[in-house]
Amino acid sequence: MSRQRTVIENVQPSVDAGRYPAKRVVGDRVAVTADIYADGHDLIRAVVRFRRAGTKKFSESEMRPLGNDAWAGSFLVDALGGWEFQVEGWVDHYDTWIDGLEKKAEVDSESDVDLAIGAALLHGAAGRAGRSRGRDTIERAALLLETTDAPLRERAGHALDPKLIELVRRYPDRSFASRCEPPLQLTVDPVHARFSSWYEMFPRGVYRDGTKHGTFRDVIDRLEYVKSMGFDVLYLPPIHPIGQAYRKGRNNALIPEAGDPGSPWAIGGPEGGHTAIHPQLGTAEDFRALVTAAQKRGIRIALDIAFQCSPDHPWVSEHPEWFVRRPDGSIQYAENPPKKYQDIYPVNFESDQWEELWAALKGVFDHWIAQGVTIFRVDNPHTKSFPFWEWCIREIKSVHPEAVFLAEAFTRPRRMYGLAKMGFTQSYTYFAWRTDKAELEEYLTELTATGVAEFYRPSFWPNTPDILHEYLQEGGEPAFTIRLALAATLSSNYGIYGPAFELQEATPREPGSEEYLDSEKYEIRRWSTANPRSLAPFISRINAIRRENPALQRTTGLRFHETDNDQIMAYSRSSEDGGNVVLVVVNLSYEHTHSAWVEFSPAAVSRHDSRPFSLTELLSGVGYTWGEYWNFVELDPFHSPVQIFRLEME
Amino acid sequence: MSRQRTVIENVQPSVDAGRYPAKRVVGDRVAVTADIYADGHDLIRAVVRFRRAGTKKFSESEMRPLGNDAWAGSFLVDALGGWEFQVEGWVDHYDTWIDGLEKKAEVDSESDVDLAIGAALLHGAAGRAGRSRGRDTIERAALLLETTDAPLRERAGHALDPKLIELVRRYPDRSFASRCEPPLQLTVDPVHARFSSWYEMFPRGVYRDGTKHGTFRDVIDRLEYVKSMGFDVLYLPPIHPIGQAYRKGRNNALIPEAGDPGSPWAIGGPEGGHTAIHPQLGTAEDFRALVTAAQKRGIRIALDIAFQCSPDHPWVSEHPEWFVRRPDGSIQYAENPPKKYQDIYPVNFESDQWEELWAALKGVFDHWIAQGVTIFRVDNPHTKSFPFWEWCIREIKSVHPEAVFLAEAFTRPRRMYGLAKMGFTQSYTYFAWRTDKAELEEYLTELTATGVAEFYRPSFWPNTPDILHEYLQEGGEPAFTIRLALAATLSSNYGIYGPAFELQEATPREPGSEEYLDSEKYEIRRWSTANPRSLAPFISRINAIRRENPALQRTTGLRFHETDNDQIMAYSRSSEDGGNVVLVVVNLSYEHTHSAWVEFSPAAVSRHDSRPFSLTELLSGVGYTWGEYWNFVELDPFHSPVQIFRLEME
Repeated sequence: MSRQRTVIENVQPSVDAGRYPAKRVVGDRVAVTADIYADGHDLIRAVVRFRRAGTKKFSESEMRPLGNDAWAGSFLVDALGGWEFQVEGWVDHYDTWIDGLEKKAEVDSESDVDLAIGAALLHGAAGRAGRSRGRDTIERAALLLETTDAPLRERAGHALDPKLIELVRRYPDRSFASRCEPPLQLTVDPVHARFSSWYEMFPRGVYRDGTKHGTFRDVIDRLEYVKSMGFDVLYLPPIHPIGQAYRKGRNNALIPEAGDPGSPWAIGGPEGGHTAIHPQLGTAEDFRALVTAAQKRGIRIALDIAFQCSPDHPWVSEHPEWFVRRPDGSIQYAENPPKKYQDIYPVNFESDQWEELWAALKGVFDHWIAQGVTIFRVDNPHTKSFPFWEWCIREIKSVHPEAVFLAEAFTRPRRMYGLAKMGFTQSYTYFAWRTDKAELEEYLTELTATGVAEFYRPSFWPNTPDILHEYLQEGGEPAFTIRLALAATLSSNYGIYGPAFELQEATPREPGSEEYLDSEKYEIRRWSTANPRSLAPFISRINAIRRENPALQRTTGLRFHETDNDQIMAYSRSSEDGGNVVLVVVNLSYEHTHSAWVEFSPAAVSRHDSRPFSLTELLSGVGYTWGEYWNFVELDPFHSPVQIFRLEME
Repeated sequence: MSRQRTVIENVQPSVDAGRYPAKRVVGDRVAVTADIYADGHDLIRAVVRFRRAGTKKFSESEMRPLGNDAWAGSFLVDALGGWEFQVEGWVDHYDTWIDGLEKKAEVDSESDVDLAIGAALLHGAAGRAGRSRGRDTIERAALLLETTDAPLRERAGHALDPKLIELVRRYPDRSFASRCEPPLQLTVDPVHARFSSWYEMFPRGVYRDGTKHGTFRDVIDRLEYVKSMGFDVLYLPPIHPIGQAYRKGRNNALIPEAGDPGSPWAIGGPEGGHTAIHPQLGTAEDFRALVTAAQKRGIRIALDIAFQCSPDHPWVSEHPEWFVRRPDGSIQYAENPPKKYQDIYPVNFESDQWEELWAALKGVFDHWIAQGVTIFRVDNPHTKSFPFWEWCIREIKSVHPEAVFLAEAFTRPRRMYGLAKMGFTQSYTYFAWRTDKAELEEYLTELTATGVAEFYRPSFWPNTPDILHEYLQEGGEPAFTIRLALAATLSSNYGIYGPAFELQEATPREPGSEEYLDSEKYEIRRWSTANPRSLAPFISRINAIRRENPALQRTTGLRFHETDNDQIMAYSRSSEDGGNVVLVVVNLSYEHTHSAWVEFSPAAVSRHDSRPFSLTELLSGVGYTWGEYWNFVELDPFHSPVQIFRLEME
């Protein structure tokens, strides 16, 4: 069967030519494009065929030509999970005939033979119409074309009736249609995979007066605080028993002092491993109560899954075959020569028992999903086998398509992108280290305006327990304000590590370090969230603006605007339908007032006239009128380093 | 088996992710790149595996890391035909151990366990070394590592002996290696697929005094002329019998006059079709004599294959099922409504007998290959089925890998690129219509600096029998000189339609037309090649410069240089090894003298110092010394519109 004359190329969205699924969220209209062409002058028609993975029947939606052999179509993904789509195209003899007849009719050159050809095409369509009501209409039209005693002109005119054409086009001859094979894949995630505001908090640091170690019950009491700031994901560092062997002391000391609580990432002790709960945090019941209490407030609990074991982890004795055994019989600890990490045993993905190991690791997620958790922040996934992640996430999502996996991989770009291809729903980024205008614009362009956007959903974090950037160390409140606003308006997914962030904790362990002094990783910190210096009110306002403006709920749709000052960055975001446009102007300097002329052209909002723009600045509520192109802005970092304008649509 | 921790992505060269072969010529070293990474800190090794298509055994060549997970390797293609290659990568525990041991040795922290681990790795390598001589050396090294009574330092030092390392690395443990599958494809063509100079000539226009119709014997007499200009391909429009039905007269008149010879593209008459020879041109023996005589002069004969039939073509009566039959029983002629081309019957690629049709069309090529022709210029291939071309060219080249197919498709970009992907060796281009600097630079960048260069080999034609561009119509000798120089130095494959070109024939059929007045397509023209105005000496010099400079023998390796005048274009070409660099400076105006400062920086020739450049202008033989960056050039279109400098390497 090689009479398929149509060639289909470059079908998008696709990731590595279909090797990996592209990502969407439920409710998205998926825009499909392809290059489609055939030989000669004949016209082509094409459809997108789409279905949920595991179902048989494809639905279809017609594509339209954009010119120069580019075609576009779309379909709605209205359910979570895997989807498949493909493009089918064919040389359409009926469309070709109609087109030719129109051109001939214009110069009165249609002939009986032309109409006889059309009649044959209509008979064919009638046959394909089967028992549908259109069949008779089409047959009658065919007979009229063949009735040679009526005037040529009149018969041709009837054939060109738009209603008839629309009817006949429902029954095209697709005998020689071509398809892109195999179908391309999509992963359709919940909406919060694309739009979420995370708050990271050490539960042991949330404690009532008189106790030494915060509990899940204490965290429940703190939920209103988290909600008041507008966060919808509360992420907890590992909640498992902490190992004793080689436990690290305060500020990462090699020798702990008595009573030092250890790092939550040194997972596993006599009380259990990755499916157990650190006894001082509470019981499994307490944990489920936390999950439920959070849910009631619209907050999802995210757990930290760190696949490494302390020497005290039950797997070490129960499954030594999952680790690398050294010639002296000991188990290999983590190394980055000459550095040694004797408190951590990595699992061995080359183990002969790799299948059992994979199953046990996946079982950790299954366990917590059964406790009501569907969001996982995965620690250092780039130090675990990539094929494992592809298998594990696919298997889990085939049963729990609502599951969300955030990759905490701070590594080289191809590995970060690779994890996203393997299935991670969201990914940490280099945002914490991108502080000047040129590097922010370059990085955001890569993330939002290239193929990367099809599979990599960035999450912007101005700080984490491991990253206190020099900019925050030195810049005081303006720096915290600027970085929060950038994270929350440049990326639809973002998060902060609090209360360190809103309380503007800024002291490094030592000069030049990005580690916090007295880091919560190694000790219990007491935070006074009622501190009047807290940025909580500002954060709350920013998160409200995010909820109210669809433009800020996706990371694509970003456009940078020219300014004449390197310290003033301006960008607009727009919603998919263009109905919501938000313009952000930021002074990147935490020290000095800067002003700039900012370019904001009608084209930025798909307008083509020179009427002035009505803008509302959302932090102050003040209205502005801007002319086309250049407008003046001056920003004092101590007063209002950031302005967020909503364009008022008339 | 999912212990393969290595991920291999983005292997190049590839066309549409491996759907089509990339193109190379015999003797090329194929540069292979890939992104290769694994989890964690372990080191990776990788090889390119390559073989001729149809053979079993792969050869291998080691790849090297370029940093940031990018890798590079290469291999030589030393035979015509299909080749396959793939990349294989693996986590290399020996390399990882050596790297760790070096770092530990620097701070004296190596331990007995470290050496025992190394010993185990060496035992493994010795096992893989089999009966090779290295086996004993490796075993001895392993035993030494295990000999705990020797000092740690000394044993580690022995393990780090570069000669030992080199030996052990020959026997890596590739148990868990990953491969990109399936292997990627290459088509390896003869060198003249990449570098050729074509001369198109109507044989019937080459005739001795006293005769009215040139013959193959006359063409033999004209070979010395063609050779003197330095061309190596002589391309003849169709040489088949010409139909009588609906024959076109002079200047494409619908009604011919008695004795009008018709268009050679209206193929087929009582004397035969695509495998027959127009009787007035001579016999099959004459044709073979021409092929042989040309070969002796280093010239290959290229034939024009136009798969369409005059109503008199034998296939019309013998195989009416290969054409579209209209309801009135007649055969459908070519149409582009409302235009009718009644002298031409297109074949029907949707015929029920498509397999017989495909075989017959392929048989045309096979016939002429048997007559000694291996170069085919295919007329309007975009009006024939794309899948047919993919099959036809692949089948022919599987037996005759030396065959070259030039696609004469002047159509939309994706279809032109599509034909090249389907297998066409070379392709006509938009060059004839790209006359100003910006559009030339943009077009050449697309052709030479994007993925297009992997499959699309441009051929630049300043004129053809169908294209007499306004620039040539209006610009006189400077225009012909400029366009020839551009074609011949911007593209390693180029051609002209002569003698019209060298004799500067410039009269259009009517104003605004690109057709020649009194076109040879419809009548026999007498040309006086001895005309003193002929550009033959200039063409001869340009072709000699092409032969002498490898930089001009590939179309990649192009770099545009800034000038401060839009009428002055400057570009350099370099050979693959960088040993030959040619700088071309052209005045694009055929009317006025222009001057410009031309940027020519050391980086353009991979130099990093500020020594002056020694240049030889190859048309004049004059030597120049240029400083770095900006040099002044003034070009008078009537004297020397073009300068071609060779950079003298010291």
